[in-house]
Amino acid sequence: MSSNSFGTLLTITTFGESHGLALGVVIDGCPAGIRLSEKDFLPDLARRRPGQSAITTARKEEDAPTILSGVFEGKTTGMPIAVIVANTNQKPEAYEKLRNDYRIGHADATFASKYGHRDHRGGGRQSGRETVARVIAGAVAKKILPKKLKIIGHTIQIGPYIAQVYSPATIEKNPVRCADPAMAKKMEAYILKLKSEANSTGGLIEIRVKNPPKNLGDPVFAKLKSRLADALMTIGAVTGVSYGAGFKTAAMQGKDYVKNKENFGGMLGGISTGEDLILTISIKPASSIGQVAKEGRHDPCIVPRVIPVAEAMVALVLADCLLLQQAYSSSSSL
Amino acid sequence: MSSNSFGTLLTITTFGESHGLALGVVIDGCPAGIRLSEKDFLPDLARRRPGQSAITTARKEEDAPTILSGVFEGKTTGMPIAVIVANTNQKPEAYEKLRNDYRIGHADATFASKYGHRDHRGGGRQSGRETVARVIAGAVAKKILPKKLKIIGHTIQIGPYIAQVYSPATIEKNPVRCADPAMAKKMEAYILKLKSEANSTGGLIEIRVKNPPKNLGDPVFAKLKSRLADALMTIGAVTGVSYGAGFKTAAMQGKDYVKNKENFGGMLGGISTGEDLILTISIKPASSIGQVAKEGRHDPCIVPRVIPVAEAMVALVLADCLLLQQAYSSSSSL
Amino acid sequence: MSSNSFGTLLTITTFGESHGLALGVVIDGCPAGIRLSEKDFLPDLARRRPGQSAITTARKEEDAPTILSGVFEGKTTGMPIAVIVANTNQKPEAYEKLRNDYRIGHADATFASKYGHRDHRGGGRQSGRETVARVIAGAVAKKILPKKLKIIGHTIQIGPYIAQVYSPATIEKNPVRCADPAMAKKMEAYILKLKSEANSTGGLIEIRVKNPPKNLGDPVFAKLKSRLADALMTIGAVTGVSYGAGFKTAAMQGKDYVKNKENFGGMLGGISTGEDLILTISIKPASSIGQVAKEGRHDPCIVPRVIPVAEAMVALVLADCLLLQQAYSSSSSL
Amino acid sequence: MSSNSFGTLLTITTFGESHGLALGVVIDGCPAGIRLSEKDFLPDLARRRPGQSAITTARKEEDAPTILSGVFEGKTTGMPIAVIVANTNQKPEAYEKLRNDYRIGHADATFASKYGHRDHRGGGRQSGRETVARVIAGAVAKKILPKKLKIIGHTIQIGPYIAQVYSPATIEKNPVRCADPAMAKKMEAYILKLKSEANSTGGLIEIRVKNPPKNLGDPVFAKLKSRLADALMTIGAVTGVSYGAGFKTAAMQGKDYVKNKENFGGMLGGISTGEDLILTISIKPASSIGQVAKEGRHDPCIVPRVIPVAEAMVALVLADCLLLQQAYSSSSSL
Repeated sequence: MSSNSFGTLLTITTFGESHGLALGVVIDGCPAGIRLSEKDFLPDLARRRPGQSAITTARKEEDAPTILSGVFEGKTTGMPIAVIVANTNQKPEAYEKLRNDYRIGHADATFASKYGHRDHRGGGRQSGRETVARVIAGAVAKKILPKKLKIIGHTIQIGPYIAQVYSPATIEKNPVRCADPAMAKKMEAYILKLKSEANSTGGLIEIRVKNPPKNLGDPVFAKLKSRLADALMTIGAVTGVSYGAGFKTAAMQGKDYVKNKENFGGMLGGISTGEDLILTISIKPASSIGQVAKEGRHDPCIVPRVIPVAEAMVALVLADCLLLQQAYSSSSSL
Repeated sequence: MSSNSFGTLLTITTFGESHGLALGVVIDGCPAGIRLSEKDFLPDLARRRPGQSAITTARKEEDAPTILSGVFEGKTTGMPIAVIVANTNQKPEAYEKLRNDYRIGHADATFASKYGHRDHRGGGRQSGRETVARVIAGAVAKKILPKKLKIIGHTIQIGPYIAQVYSPATIEKNPVRCADPAMAKKMEAYILKLKSEANSTGGLIEIRVKNPPKNLGDPVFAKLKSRLADALMTIGAVTGVSYGAGFKTAAMQGKDYVKNKENFGGMLGGISTGEDLILTISIKPASSIGQVAKEGRHDPCIVPRVIPVAEAMVALVLADCLLLQQAYSSSSSL
Repeated sequence: MSSNSFGTLLTITTFGESHGLALGVVIDGCPAGIRLSEKDFLPDLARRRPGQSAITTARKEEDAPTILSGVFEGKTTGMPIAVIVANTNQKPEAYEKLRNDYRIGHADATFASKYGHRDHRGGGRQSGRETVARVIAGAVAKKILPKKLKIIGHTIQIGPYIAQVYSPATIEKNPVRCADPAMAKKMEAYILKLKSEANSTGGLIEIRVKNPPKNLGDPVFAKLKSRLADALMTIGAVTGVSYGAGFKTAAMQGKDYVKNKENFGGMLGGISTGEDLILTISIKPASSIGQVAKEGRHDPCIVPRVIPVAEAMVALVLADCLLLQQAYSSSSSL
Repeated sequence: MSSNSFGTLLTITTFGESHGLALGVVIDGCPAGIRLSEKDFLPDLARRRPGQSAITTARKEEDAPTILSGVFEGKTTGMPIAVIVANTNQKPEAYEKLRNDYRIGHADATFASKYGHRDHRGGGRQSGRETVARVIAGAVAKKILPKKLKIIGHTIQIGPYIAQVYSPATIEKNPVRCADPAMAKKMEAYILKLKSEANSTGGLIEIRVKNPPKNLGDPVFAKLKSRLADALMTIGAVTGVSYGAGFKTAAMQGKDYVKNKENFGGMLGGISTGEDLILTISIKPASSIGQVAKEGRHDPCIVPRVIPVAEAMVALVLADCLLLQQAYSSSSSL
């Protein structure tokens, strides 16, 4: 299968470089009859966009998606939904000096080695801009999922600052997307300080899925936990994925582990139990520091902008698993 | 694709329950002309086997693999290699009392919900016994990989005990498979204590790949890091996966992150750099405690037995990526 | 995906050479709760078997299938169903003289070229014996399909003899599997004459599916007609596949074509209409003539033995498409 | 996998309706470093276009492809190549009267049944316009194939007129694309007569591949012959596919079959021998007759326009098989 495709029944194929004409996504396997328009993509695109606040890059990206196919008279038709976003902010000349300048910690060198050439204009496919396509696809996936299902991503750590409180209503009210408003302030101040030093920070994100369907995931190589780990680890900045008690299980005893259902993260044997799904991902600090910082395109903390991307990937996995499960749940009628 | 299949060019399909007639694996896409016999499977099967030492379950499993196809005159033919292992230790009557007894923290309930029935005989496909098939397949994968490539799994934490020393020659000389011999003793004592209490412990495993080929992995959804995360998370006991600095990146600053190449874990942009690959997985404590412990089939610490399984999954991903890369590396001749 | 695997949700992976220890199949994605035992495989295996009558090879194959996994207490569990058939009639010494003898019209030479080695013992994977696995899998697929659906293969041409009458009750009552009893006698005599001359004949088979579900098949690359063509063309002896009016459409005018629904073969736009599916396949004459004939393993007409194999492949495609369609037909409840 | 995707390593995903904003294709898995521009698509698009001559529909389609991604400084980058073609000739109002008018022999009804809605504007995805995307992708595939390889499609039958001569230089010099110039004239006259009667005709196409690589195709379910049959049968108008002697094998005797290598069609055991590949496809007469004919959008014979589409599908299969084979042919260096 195409390495730029993802999914089994609900599949997406993404394309486009950060400095090409456009980027986009083809979403196939979406059921027919779902209301869909470009407006549905805008809220999460806004949450993903650079320049939302002082703590992210000041780089501007105008993301105006156009649906090319798969929607007729306001509803999905069951045919592939192609959506493109033109790149309006191309300044290739600004990158000319990067032509022979391989950045440490960047994928520049591995791409050059693997493909025998290099797009020096700020990253090509390894650019974070590719995630625009994922966010668009995720918005479609959410429409396939039950309405009561909610996917909530929030920042639980930035550098040394760890959230102590879970107040979900506050998440979207601070630029860090932290559910602990007091800690969010400290995180913000920390990021601004790093920004002034042309430095950056990593962080931790929790993604919690409320009211997931049960019975999602398939033994043994399409477990829900492995599909989610795969999906989240395809995001460039993600360095680790865990579910439930995650890495804390290393120090746990069995009798304590089984006491608290949250430790299972909503999955047993790789199949969803119907309890909340709980996932944690670690995000590395942006490697684009120093030099790049001087050009005003520096991103001192990408953690809050990764959240809508991670939510989109989770939505895609869940919608795909739901369709797969429907193939079998109706088989009782045979 | 079959949810019991894994891989793109080098694929495996596993089958079999812990209490059926046999379990096995079909390995397809293996190049022709590789020397292979049943003996090649035995070392890693021995490392995976229960009853190796006092710290694992006393349950006996005699794993005598038979190659049914795909090998002729001692060499692979390019055809699918089917290997089966008969289950000689079936005691279904011992499980009769479990027929209506769903164990906490086990997949019993999710399987029953999803499939509308239940194999109460100790787990069926969600049993750890399924990993026999993976270890066999991993031995084939290792034969496809370059000889100088080494995949080394070792325990770096058990409960509160964290390895401080990396002395690889000692790993297979202690039952914990820890590269810190002094810490291994403490880990072993801790596990024996938990065993006497019918309790269990989790742990952390590092998998280090020496001399990997560069250029493995494909943007954007078949990144080497996401393929490895997927592969490792398909193992039942694994609760988290990270690479390089992993979850430590949450507290890191960019200027520190880029200083040490080990933080990248041997991958940039999802493509291998040729540096050592470094992966960490967290293992949950076995949920089979208390009652089961009384029956002598209790496993107080599965961490050392997960190591050969994790190595096998890494080998399968790397061999598959290598074949994929070969499809393109020779294309210069076109 | 493995080149020895077939299907999307209902998948099969076959393995085994004609002269190895055993051959078999792993069937994955079968719904749970379906009654299944080895007896279910026997009728179609008997129809496929050599030595059924004077017009096929006298070679004996005792096909005693064993279910290794995926069935518990008489029902499918939703887990992969592995079935093996031991090869009891291995006489490798009989083939020793073939070691350097490449047969014209056989796959010997292409296998040797592609894989750099050769299994001279009568064909390996390119042997017709591989179809045992398909017939077993087809029997499982038929259990997934609605009971009223019937897949009926029958011979419509052998050499110059073309069936003129369709009397379905007579198909299994003559060794040619022809629905025209009078013509069947002529076909049989013709085949026996060729047999005496160490020669062979090709033929045509029609496969008719009564009461198929509508809405099967997916635009644009998973059309039902293309999936069926693919499935049937994977059978070694098949040289052509058509549906509905097939090759006769070349000489047809549009106004005549649309007059008779049978011309559409039960599919429009690659999707089943609910009308009978009508498929035709052409079978080449066996290339194993002359020399091989002397050894008594000559098959003067494989056409009647291809019928259960073709039916099995059609069943696999239809069951897979039905599961795929169920993934969407229940989505109205979302 | 997406039902609008095709291929294993070289994959295409097509999208777009005949009356939407645009249609297009994402081509993934193309090697890096191949020269590519929009000009490369124009010759085959011109051969596919309606309105080339008096014998096809007078409908105008201006196909101006734009490469959105995957090409940098005139060469492929190894990243997905997205190409779109805007639909400039949309006249939805012209179709308003078709809203409740289901055409006999068209996919209108099956789409409506399967998806619960209907795009009455001339066909949506089941329209022949979808093949624009295939022709574009085929042009990329041809660049991956060896230069000496040639894929030559030509008409061998139209209604009662059967080509008797093979003069390849004449194929593109007559509107029927027939290699027998004298017969081409008769075919043309026949088509014009049918056109005047608001009727249509089917035909036969032969596709001959000169200088194909040997060793393409994989046993047992990815045989070259089954992959080609699948690929060609995905084209809407194709009703049958055969290779080599094809349906003529039904009446052949083994001793005659093995005498002429052309009977094997360049494949044995599903693997290419290196001899010319020979394929034949039957094309049904367009069902859009009568009423539609009055509107000037009638196509009395689509056979010559199917040729570039069929060639494209063959090119895609061969390029994919070549990449797959390269994965193994370089494995000797391991």
